[in-house]
Formats: sequence, C-alpha cells, structure tokens
Amino acid sequence: MGTTDAADAISTDELDLLHRYWSAANYLTVAQIYLQENALLREPLAPDHIKPRLLGHWGTGPGLSLIYVHLNRLIRRTGADVLFLAGPGHGGPAVVANVYLEGTYSEVYPEVSQDAAGLRRLARQFSTPGGIGSHAGPATPGSIHEGGELGYSLMHATGAVMDNPGLIAACVVGDGEAETGPLAASWDAPFFLNPVRDGAVLPILHLNGHKISGPTVLGRRSDADVEALLHAHGWAPVTVSGDDPQRVHRELAAAVDRAYADIRRFQEAARSDGVTGAARWPAIILRTPKGWTGPETVDGSPVEGTFRSHQVPLSGVRDNPEHLAQLEQWMRSYQPETLFDADGRLVPELAALAPEGALRMGSVPPANGLPSVPLEIPDLTRYAVDPGERGSTSKETTKPLGELFRDLYRSTEADPRFRLFCPDETNSNRLGAVFEASDRCLLLPPGSGDAAGSSDHVSPDGRVMEVLSEHLCQGWLEGYLLSGRHGFFASYEAFAMVSASMTVQHAKWLQHARELDWRSPVPSLNILLTSTCWRNDHNGFSHQGPGLIDTVLSLSGEVTRIYLPPDTNTLLAAAEHALLSTDYVNLVVVDKQAHPQYLTLDEARAHAEAGASRWDWAGNEPPEGTSDPDIVLACAGDIPTEETLAAAWLLQRHVPEARVRVVNIMDAMVLPPRQTHPHGLDGGTFSSLFTEGCDVVVAWHGYARSFHQLLHGRPNPERFHVRGYSQQGTTTTPFDMVVLNRMSRYHLTLEALRRLPRRLPGAEDLAELCSRQLDAHARYIREYFEDLPEIRNWTWTPPAPPE
Amino acid sequence: MGTTDAADAISTDELDLLHRYWSAANYLTVAQIYLQENALLREPLAPDHIKPRLLGHWGTGPGLSLIYVHLNRLIRRTGADVLFLAGPGHGGPAVVANVYLEGTYSEVYPEVSQDAAGLRRLARQFSTPGGIGSHAGPATPGSIHEGGELGYSLMHATGAVMDNPGLIAACVVGDGEAETGPLAASWDAPFFLNPVRDGAVLPILHLNGHKISGPTVLGRRSDADVEALLHAHGWAPVTVSGDDPQRVHRELAAAVDRAYADIRRFQEAARSDGVTGAARWPAIILRTPKGWTGPETVDGSPVEGTFRSHQVPLSGVRDNPEHLAQLEQWMRSYQPETLFDADGRLVPELAALAPEGALRMGSVPPANGLPSVPLEIPDLTRYAVDPGERGSTSKETTKPLGELFRDLYRSTEADPRFRLFCPDETNSNRLGAVFEASDRCLLLPPGSGDAAGSSDHVSPDGRVMEVLSEHLCQGWLEGYLLSGRHGFFASYEAFAMVSASMTVQHAKWLQHARELDWRSPVPSLNILLTSTCWRNDHNGFSHQGPGLIDTVLSLSGEVTRIYLPPDTNTLLAAAEHALLSTDYVNLVVVDKQAHPQYLTLDEARAHAEAGASRWDWAGNEPPEGTSDPDIVLACAGDIPTEETLAAAWLLQRHVPEARVRVVNIMDAMVLPPRQTHPHGLDGGTFSSLFTEGCDVVVAWHGYARSFHQLLHGRPNPERFHVRGYSQQGTTTTPFDMVVLNRMSRYHLTLEALRRLPRRLPGAEDLAELCSRQLDAHARYIREYFEDLPEIRNWTWTPPAPPE
Repeated sequence: MGTTDAADAISTDELDLLHRYWSAANYLTVAQIYLQENALLREPLAPDHIKPRLLGHWGTGPGLSLIYVHLNRLIRRTGADVLFLAGPGHGGPAVVANVYLEGTYSEVYPEVSQDAAGLRRLARQFSTPGGIGSHAGPATPGSIHEGGELGYSLMHATGAVMDNPGLIAACVVGDGEAETGPLAASWDAPFFLNPVRDGAVLPILHLNGHKISGPTVLGRRSDADVEALLHAHGWAPVTVSGDDPQRVHRELAAAVDRAYADIRRFQEAARSDGVTGAARWPAIILRTPKGWTGPETVDGSPVEGTFRSHQVPLSGVRDNPEHLAQLEQWMRSYQPETLFDADGRLVPELAALAPEGALRMGSVPPANGLPSVPLEIPDLTRYAVDPGERGSTSKETTKPLGELFRDLYRSTEADPRFRLFCPDETNSNRLGAVFEASDRCLLLPPGSGDAAGSSDHVSPDGRVMEVLSEHLCQGWLEGYLLSGRHGFFASYEAFAMVSASMTVQHAKWLQHARELDWRSPVPSLNILLTSTCWRNDHNGFSHQGPGLIDTVLSLSGEVTRIYLPPDTNTLLAAAEHALLSTDYVNLVVVDKQAHPQYLTLDEARAHAEAGASRWDWAGNEPPEGTSDPDIVLACAGDIPTEETLAAAWLLQRHVPEARVRVVNIMDAMVLPPRQTHPHGLDGGTFSSLFTEGCDVVVAWHGYARSFHQLLHGRPNPERFHVRGYSQQGTTTTPFDMVVLNRMSRYHLTLEALRRLPRRLPGAEDLAELCSRQLDAHARYIREYFEDLPEIRNWTWTPPAPPE
Repeated sequence: MGTTDAADAISTDELDLLHRYWSAANYLTVAQIYLQENALLREPLAPDHIKPRLLGHWGTGPGLSLIYVHLNRLIRRTGADVLFLAGPGHGGPAVVANVYLEGTYSEVYPEVSQDAAGLRRLARQFSTPGGIGSHAGPATPGSIHEGGELGYSLMHATGAVMDNPGLIAACVVGDGEAETGPLAASWDAPFFLNPVRDGAVLPILHLNGHKISGPTVLGRRSDADVEALLHAHGWAPVTVSGDDPQRVHRELAAAVDRAYADIRRFQEAARSDGVTGAARWPAIILRTPKGWTGPETVDGSPVEGTFRSHQVPLSGVRDNPEHLAQLEQWMRSYQPETLFDADGRLVPELAALAPEGALRMGSVPPANGLPSVPLEIPDLTRYAVDPGERGSTSKETTKPLGELFRDLYRSTEADPRFRLFCPDETNSNRLGAVFEASDRCLLLPPGSGDAAGSSDHVSPDGRVMEVLSEHLCQGWLEGYLLSGRHGFFASYEAFAMVSASMTVQHAKWLQHARELDWRSPVPSLNILLTSTCWRNDHNGFSHQGPGLIDTVLSLSGEVTRIYLPPDTNTLLAAAEHALLSTDYVNLVVVDKQAHPQYLTLDEARAHAEAGASRWDWAGNEPPEGTSDPDIVLACAGDIPTEETLAAAWLLQRHVPEARVRVVNIMDAMVLPPRQTHPHGLDGGTFSSLFTEGCDVVVAWHGYARSFHQLLHGRPNPERFHVRGYSQQGTTTTPFDMVVLNRMSRYHLTLEALRRLPRRLPGAEDLAELCSRQLDAHARYIREYFEDLPEIRNWTWTPPAPPE
C-alpha cells in the first residue's frame, strides 16, 4: 500500500512524448464532441464549425485516455496482450480517439482515414444521426463492453481472462460505477482466478470524484481508505494521484510497470511451483480531476474537477462568442499543430508510441470475437434416455445434461473453452456430474474452522464457477463468450430475474454487433432456467417466477431464442443447438425434478428441429384423417406437457367420440409470425398444427398472458384458451401448484369440454368427475394440515390407449 | 478490531438461562422441520410422528436463534427498540420459533397457542400445504424481509432506520448473501445514515462457512481479512467465533452490549454536538458452525459445520430406524422436558428472558406496518401548468413534480416521513426543486481534492438519497415504506430493469401481506420512470428499454398499477394518487423533456380518475353523434400522444370526411377485463371508448407486443393495430426514434388510412404525403451525417381545427 514513489524509469523525453500523445487523444475527444468542420483548427474557430447539437461526455475522457496511453507504453515495452475495458463507457469519444490514433479505427472503418478528411469524419460522426453512438459499444473496435448500464466492467474483464493465460484485462472502473452492487461484488475476482491457467485482471479504479451532479463515495474517501477496501478484497493496490501531469505520468508509468512485473511474477511462480492460494494481484487507484485539461471555470463556476465537466462543459457555443473563444483556447492548449502533420496525420514520433498490429488494444483478437473455436459436441446417444413406453419412465431431466457438460470439460482439456457458471446450485440443479471432470473453483484454502470433508469438489484448479451472485455468474460468462469461448449459465428460474437487465443489455450488444462484418460471431449466451416455478413448491412464492421469459420475449427476435423442452432428450437436442449457435441469447427452461420421458433421441431431434409438433400418439385422430379435430390441446414446458397429456387421456377415455389433438411446442418462437421472429411458422404449418378455427386449450409454462403476446398476428387468436402461471404460489404440493394456477389436468379438461363444438356422450360425466376431483383436492389441501397424509401428487401414469 | 475479550458482564446463571432459551429455539426449529406429533417428545419417537415430507432449512437456524436470544437480552436490559432482519430468510423455522417463544406468534395466530396443542400446530404447519411457507415472510410477525431472493437485507435495514432515530435495525447477513452484488454495495450504509435524525443499523455478519453445497468466500477468509473488509466500508467490526457455546455466549453478550453502548454514544454525541462525519458504527462478525448443535455426522459423513447441514440433515427418517434414533437423540440433547412445562408452555424462568409487549422483536410497530401516518398532499393547483391552447405550451413535464416533492419535504419536517431516492439523476430528471428543501445526503465531507464549489447541495443533513445503484435506491425505499413511511424512486427507464427482480419480490410481498389483517397497509412503492426510451436519443441503445412495464404487467393486478400520464397535470394527479395509496407497486412512466401540455388540472384529475378518455377536442365526431367513427386513434404515454395528435390532425385536415376519434389511455390497467385487473373497464365503458368493431390504431409507450397482452379477453382484439417500441435505437434525433420504431405520425396516419372502412376523398393524397415525408426523413438521416444540418424534429404544432 502507499503511493508510488516517483520513479525515474521513464525519461523526460519519453514522458514528453507520452504527454503529447495524451494531448492528441484529448484534443480528438473535444473535437468529436464539438466540431463539424475545421477539425485541425487550421483556421480560427467560427460558429459554423460547431455541430448543431452538442452531445457527449467529456469528464471521464482525459482519465480514460491517460490510462490508454500508459497501457500503450506497457505493451510496446513488453509485448503483452492487453484487453482494454472502459467501465465508463460513456467516455466513448476518448476510447474512439485512442483506437483511431493507434490506427485500428481506420483499418476497420477506412472512410475514417488517418488524414484530414478522416479527422473531419471522425469528428462529425460522433453522437450524430447516421454516425456512431456516444458510448464505447459494439461499433468500437477493441471493446467487449459498452458501459451504458454501469456495473459489469470488472466481471466482463474477469470472464475474459479465464482460460486465457496470456491475457491481461486492464479494466477502468469509474467511481460512479463503483457504487453499483454488481461492481462491488466483482472485487472478489482474485479468489476465482487461477494464475496458472487464467490471465490477469488489472483494475484501474479511476476516482475523479463526481458523477452527473453529485460526489462519489470513493471520491470522498481517503487514499488509505480506498486502498484498504481493495486490499480487503485481495488486491495489492497502489495509488497515483494529482493534477500535475508530469508527476502523474511519472507515477502512473511506474505503477503500470510494477503492476506488470508483479503479474508476471505471480504467474511465473504459480506456473513453475503451483498454486498455493489466491494471488494478491496489483490494482491501481488513479485519482485525477474530472474533465482534466478542460475549462477550469465557465461563466464563473468551477468546471474542471467538478461534476460540471461530466458532459459538455461549454454549452451554446454557436451563439455564445465567449464560450466559442473559450473552446478555441481550450482546444489550442493541446497545440494540435504539433500533434498532426500537414495531412492531418499523427506526427511520426507520436505514432511510434502505439503498439503494432494485433497488439493494439483496438485489435486484440479476444476483443473482437477472435474467431472462436467451435465446441465438438459428443454424440448425444451417450446421454439420451430410453423413454420406453411413452411417459412410463421418470427421470431427473437435467441430469444427463450434467453428463454432457462433464464430457465437454474433458474433451476441451487441451484447449479449454467451456465452462459452467451457476450460483451454488450445480448439484441442486442435478448437473453434479460435471464434478467428475472439474471442481468448483476457489483459490481460498479451507480455514481452520473447516472440518475435514466439510466441502466437496472445491479447488483452485476447478473450472466450474459457483458464486452466490447471478450477476457475477452471468457477467463472467458474458466476458468468457465475448472473448470467443462457450458456456452455460444455470440458475433457479425466479432468480434469473436478478440479472435480467444484463440479459437485455447483452441482447442489445449482440443485435448491433452482428451487423458489423469485422466482428466475428460470438458463442451464444445460454441460460438454463431450472428449479422452475412449478416445482419450487418447497421454497415457496419468492422462488416462483417465470418472468425472464417475458423479458426475453420483448427483445429482438434476431438474437433471442426460447426453448421449453418437455423431457431429457429434447433438452439435449436444445442444448446441443444452443452450444453450437452464435450471437443469440438462448433461454432453455426445464425443471430438474424427475419427470416422465416421452421421445427417443431421434424423435427429440426432429421435434426440436420443427419447434412444435403434433403428438399423434397422445391424441386420437385417425392417421388418414383430413378433417379437423374437435379440440387441440397445446402445451409448452414439462409440467404443462404432463398436465396436458393427462387431460388428453381423460378426454379420450371418458368422451371417446371426441377427436383430440395434442401439440407440443418446444420452441416458443414458432408462435409469432415470421416477420416478428425468424422461427415463426409459416401460415400453412401453423394451421397444420393448430387448425384454422378449432379451439385450442393451451398449457403454457410462463405467465399466461405472455402467450397471447406471442400469438399476436395469428388469425383468430381468441380461440386460444391459455392457462399458465398466474402469480399464485406458496409452500405446497406440486399438484396444488397447478391447481392454484388453474392449469391442472382437470382445469384443462374442463376448458376443453366447454370448447367442444358439439355435445358428446360422456362429456357431462367427465365434467362432473373433474369438478369432483378438484373439490377433493381442495378438501385435501384444507384438511392436509389437520391430517398430514402422504403427499397426493396425482403424477401422470401412462395412458392406456383408449379402447 | 480484534476479537472481544471474554467479558464477565454476564453471570453464569444468566448465561445458563440464555443457553437454555437458545436450546428451546433450536428444539422448536427441529420440531418444525420433522414432527407432526409428539412435539414435546413425551413419548419415544416413532415413525408415525415424522411428517410425510421433510422440507426446510436447518443450517442457518442455530445462528439466527443465537442472535435473536442475545438481542432479547439487550432489549430487556436497555429497553431499546430493535427490528430484526433475517437475511437468511430460509431460516424461517428459527425465526418463527423465536417469535413463538416470546409470545407474539400466539397473539397474532391464537390457534398456535402457547401450550401443547399450539406446539403441535406450530410443528405441523411448517412447510405444509395450508400451513406456512419455509421462509421468514409476510406471515412472520416482526419481519419486513423475506430473504427468499438474497441480497436485500442490509438495504432494507438501512431504509427502515432512516428518519427513525430511536430504532436499531439488527440485520443478520449470511455469508451466502454476502456474495451478492446488492449486499456488497449495501455495506456503504454508514455514509448515508445521519446519527442525529436516523436510527442505527447493527449488521451481524454470520459466517457459517457454507452454502447449499459449496464453501463461502468470507467463510474461508481470516477474521482479520473479514474485519478489514467491514472496516474499509466504514464499520467498527468485532469478531465472535467458536464452537464452545459457553464461550460464544459470553463473547457475543459482550459484543452486543458494547455495540449498543457505541451506538448510543455516537448518537448522543451527534445529537448534542452535531454531525462531523460518518460514524464508525459497530458491526459484529459471528463465526459459528453451520447446523450447530445438530448431528455431527450422518452415515459416516460430517454434517455439523458443513454444507450437509443446509437443509434437512437426517433424511428418510420414517423408514430409516438409525436416522430416527439419531433424530431422537438430537432432539433430546436439548432436554425439552426442562424447557417446557407439563402444559407445553415455556418454563417461567425462560419466558422471563423475552422482552415484553411492543419491545418484542415480533411486535415492534415498524415491522408490521405501524399504522403509517398518511402524507398530506399540498393543493395541486400550486404546481399545475396552464396548458393554454391545447398543445401550444411546452414544459418539462416532471419539473412541477419536483416542486411537489420539495413541498412534501418541507411540510413533513416536523414528522419526517417522505424521501426521494434516485441514482444521481434528480437534476437530470428535472426534479431538482427538491434541493431547495433538502440536500443530497452524504456523511463524507469533501476531500482535499474537492475544489470549492465542486459539488452542489450535498450535506450530512440532506435527506434526498442519491447513490449510483438502483438496487440501493429501491432497497432503501422498500425498507422505508415497509416501516410505514412514504417515497418515490425515480430512475432512468431502462435502468429500472436493474432492480426489476426487487420489484417482483416486493409485489409478491404485498400480495401476501395484504391478506393478513394484523398487518397495517404500507405506503405504495412508487417508481417514476423518466428519461424514457423515446427520448434517450443522445445516450443511445443501452439507455432505451421500456421492459419494466412488461415485468410489472405479469404480476398480480391486486398490487400493481401502471400510469402513463401524457402531460404535467396528469402526472401530478397520478403522483398524488400514488402517494396516498397503500399496498401497490405504482409505475409512473413519463419523460422529463419539454413536451406539449394538454389538460387543465381539473381535466387531468377527471382523466386520471377515468383511466382513459375520449379527447373529443382532438377528433371530429359530432358532439351529438351516436354512430361510430371511421377510425379510433388511441395513445398511451407522452410521445405516443404527441404523434397520435399529429396523426389525428393530418387525417382531419387532409381527409375531412373521415370521422376520427382520439382516446388517451393513462392507466394501462383499464385495458384488461376486470377479472384480470380491478381497474379493467367494464365492457360497456370499453366499447364507449373503443367502439365494438372499429379499427383502432394504437401508439403505445412500451413494447408493442405487451399491449396485446393487456387486451387479451377483450372482444375482437385483432382490430387493434399497435405501434410501440420495437427494440430499435441508437444515438439519433427524437423524431428518428419514432420513425425507427414505426410509431411516427406518418406511420400512424398510414396505418389509419389502411384501416378506413371506406374510400374517402383525400386519403390517397395523404398517404402519398406521408410516404414522401418518411422518404424525406430517411434522406435527411442518411445525409445528416454529410451535412450536419440543424436537427429537424418535427415537433407537434397545435392543430388548427380542421375547416
């Protein structure tokens, strides 16, 4: 701890060059925010040179550029692979300025050339309709992190270095972002990074003291306090602070050099002698003024070093000659004529400071998707279950998926590129087979209070990532994926909502990234929602919520998929597809408990391919029949499928003249029309499943109303009668859950009976039977409490074919 | 720092009594998990005494009870008002055991009496259908926190003590929960609590080392490291650790006594001498074995002190005689015959250890809703705007709301019970008038790096809560509300999704709490979404997302309300209603930018009351007309209203024979049928607005598809043609945003023209005009980049009545 002593490792000449390079970056940041013409200030600044609309963020820019410039120096000196993450992503113009100065930007966007014309375009395009957004985002080369929604920079950095032993992820964390929960939890990274097989994260906590309009917590704390905080999270922090550029350059250069040396020292020691515990990785705390080098005061109010420099420090520049003059003075303070040559090109002695080729931070391959090495999925027959007579076998649906994951860990040992991320629920979610191949990762050794055998499959070498934070699990995985690797995030269904906002932001990233040719596709974000609302009967209401489906439904169909496999083999088919896909968010929803199994692997593959199929074995239409059935029973999800099959059986047994069709939907996105989602069935196929006009009784895994949203645009949607989760729950029996939410076999049967197009013998008796059963259940629940009988679960027994 | 020396403040007799009380709590915890009969073990344990289904969590129970018992001691000694929050809420049976032992439970639930019959019922009801859930939840007296979804205990505790100077919130944080982001950020509470006007939070970080199946991060860190972490967040932690009950009792008693003394010392000093900075409040780190006093080993595996004690340590007890014997031995180890008398009542010398009356932690008024003192809302005419000619006045819609908030701060000064919570966006959201009444709260003084004037309206006395964490803002507010006070959480619309899961959990809490007569209603959770998707054109895609509407839509209509006021006066009416309401989640969605104003305050109130109204001034139906119009244009939200009004004007001007009706919807919940939501319009009123069969062109603030979900159950929904946010966005002009999402006035007009029931003169020309305008816009955006002209915003100009 303690501040760095001024090091004399950096010569005055080098320091001067570094400072000028930084000036160039700052200059271009200001130019992007303000200018549409005269980008090099070759003539006096005039109102016409100013953009008509001034949008952007200046305050964080100088700090971002300072760090970028010093990392450039490190890379040139060491040849290190460094990934740059800008937590304050709204400092977009600063990041773009640096990626431009190093040359990457012009390679990716040749029209933004390294000359006067390119500079003009660079300035004009920023925060401009048809131009580029104001945040570091997908369109920014070298970025795997947008920073629009704050909190995820350090977890993205951490995920990116996992299984990337040569990589250093330099992550700038702003003191605004540092107030968020997800970032606060991210500081625990050292306990989850293994110095042998993983790369290193170098956090640079940039304290400029102010947010949009208020002070920051860390900005107001002492150096010692902030160092103590990072130290308490396992880091070895060093503080560089000040407002004298020369001194800060010197100290920062020394701090970066020393951090790099420490990183390599830890890695070398661990790689030769093995891992003995969590490394105390270096971290840098950089405290410099917000909007440093910008206007000190504007209209009498202090600006530099205050919240007033957050966005555009000088407003109304077109109409305010004083502000215009102040802007010109500010821009000329960087001496642009000494930075750019007559053609508008960065002068050679400065250009020489940037790294070359793929070492440039805008060009490092993990930042732009690599291209990623696909997974080889083992033959699924190894994991497939034999359903036997349909529905007669009961299996924990997710268990074989754990075995598949185990074998992916094993088969990628030579080129590690698969991980499972799960908040302490790997076993609970029945995926525990992975532990045959890899432990849970934790660098902290057992303490004196840990009895022998007190924990299981935990070691520094483990690569199964468990931490009780959905944010960290998902954020690490996102970093791992965006740098070209593969994985799954498995969560209790209800608590996947904790990181729902991250899912939204990741989908937005993918939506824009996939439009950029120069970005490689990235493996999909696969989210397995298990321990679902229907079977969290023992945990109760707080654990029952299928809301993430609704969140994902609203996002762009180009990048979202929702699968509801009814059994194990369909789950395997969905998982295989998900793991091989790129640029999607795949939501896979399935319960972990023992459930009936229906389809062989071949059938499952065909069903997954189709997205929805008629299950003729569960209905009673004549094989050659061409007329519509009396009723269609449709279902999506495991429990809805069980209840629907039971209802179909009840109908066929008791109302033998009723023609019943069962349709299972495992890809929710076949439901909307194709213009809404690319998986949407064409009208003919839709009708071949759901007919043109029959009533359809639907049992749906999620909130009932969300199904109607999916159906929108299909003809005659009123004939679909949907039962689903209706926000009713508590600690109760599994069957009571479907009764409470009116999706039980009896409710479905009653609904179907109401919708039969004609009076059929047996229908009234069956309705009475169903009502009796529901009454009996209500009595049972009411009296359960008095008698505590065995749980009556009414699980499905395979229907004998109706005689 | 450092561990507490064994104090001799507690006598051996008292310690013995305390230990026996703890044994009683542990005994009842086990009894709840296992027994349906023989609750007092008056006869040998037999398989029939065991519940048919064993569900529950034992592991955290002994620690929760230990803390409860020691807090009881503190309360009896000092008369302090202590609120108990169980972060590990899944330790429900332990919390219930303590609330039962102190007598509160039997007062609230007389059938669970303090005798043998009540004990039998206590045991049987737990985790039983028709009984109580497995978590500390709304049904648990004294609880304002469920703990089902982990992360929010410390923020709820912090919110509860704000403006509650006499209260101490004792908050048990588990080491599992401590890994979550929201909890990690919560440790900064000392910087936001003012020792003069706020109460104190006493965190008790309970490290038992293990989660469901893995170790915890903090559990594996040294005492010194954990203390350093809390110290770095501003606390004065002390560690109590061990597995010798006598020693732990002694040390914990001393630690609690000392913590209390320190709290009172800080408060007295601050209350007499003023606040000089953040108090370094005490915190207790308690490290005891998981499942302490439970089975040491089961079937040869260690259980006590390991993850194996998390849930039900002995399984299959009915069928496994060895486990049955072990359970009996375990339960008898507490010597129940010495704890309960012949009637099953806690023996008098133990019962005397619990506090009395409202000092019992199950009975403290702030835990059960108080009853809350309503706000008195100032006369809204003070804030109302005069719209003049409709649409001719442009105002920042949210600004007057800031003035109302300001006056609420002022008018509640004598009995502070209103606060605004906002992530550093109060000014940005145009609510800055509050700062005329109160500052931002921050206990940390400016540092040496803070230039004079570098921050604004920040002081320890401030009661406007800004921190860059939606989790903290919302969590503090939830704690503030659940303890009976009032407030608003204002957020950028997109980032309200960050805490969406908290909104879901809070709604679930309200849904169950309102069914309990003994709980007072609590003021509603009011969420103001401003800086909306339609006007985050300068921030871009990551800031554009109306997803929280979808999340709230799916929740129970009993507790959710969604308001989309089109202008200032309707916003004021909605806010007044929200602030006076109880037991709801009120979502209020409105943009902060300058927008046209339409309604007088009286009209606004009537509109808010109706939820949706015909705006006859914007259409052209004859006043006495009884026939349907040709087309209905419906809108919800400020920008959709602007575009709709412009479309209505275009239609009337260019197709004068078209009969146009405009309907504005400001309460989204009038749309579903009444069985779905209590605000649902009856069929007649619905038809009087939307007709029975006319086509309706809808402009909707949120995702277009969510509107269809709302409409479900209404006749003929296919006639509604909805435009809304369709996940298209970037940094662009406001008008381009409505074009990108196909909700512009021209899109709406074209849609309306397509839906006119008959050919009308002017229609073709208007269609051509619209297409031309859209082409011109596309060209404008394409070329904008080249020319950088002034922003063409096509804002609405008030329509002259069509001639």
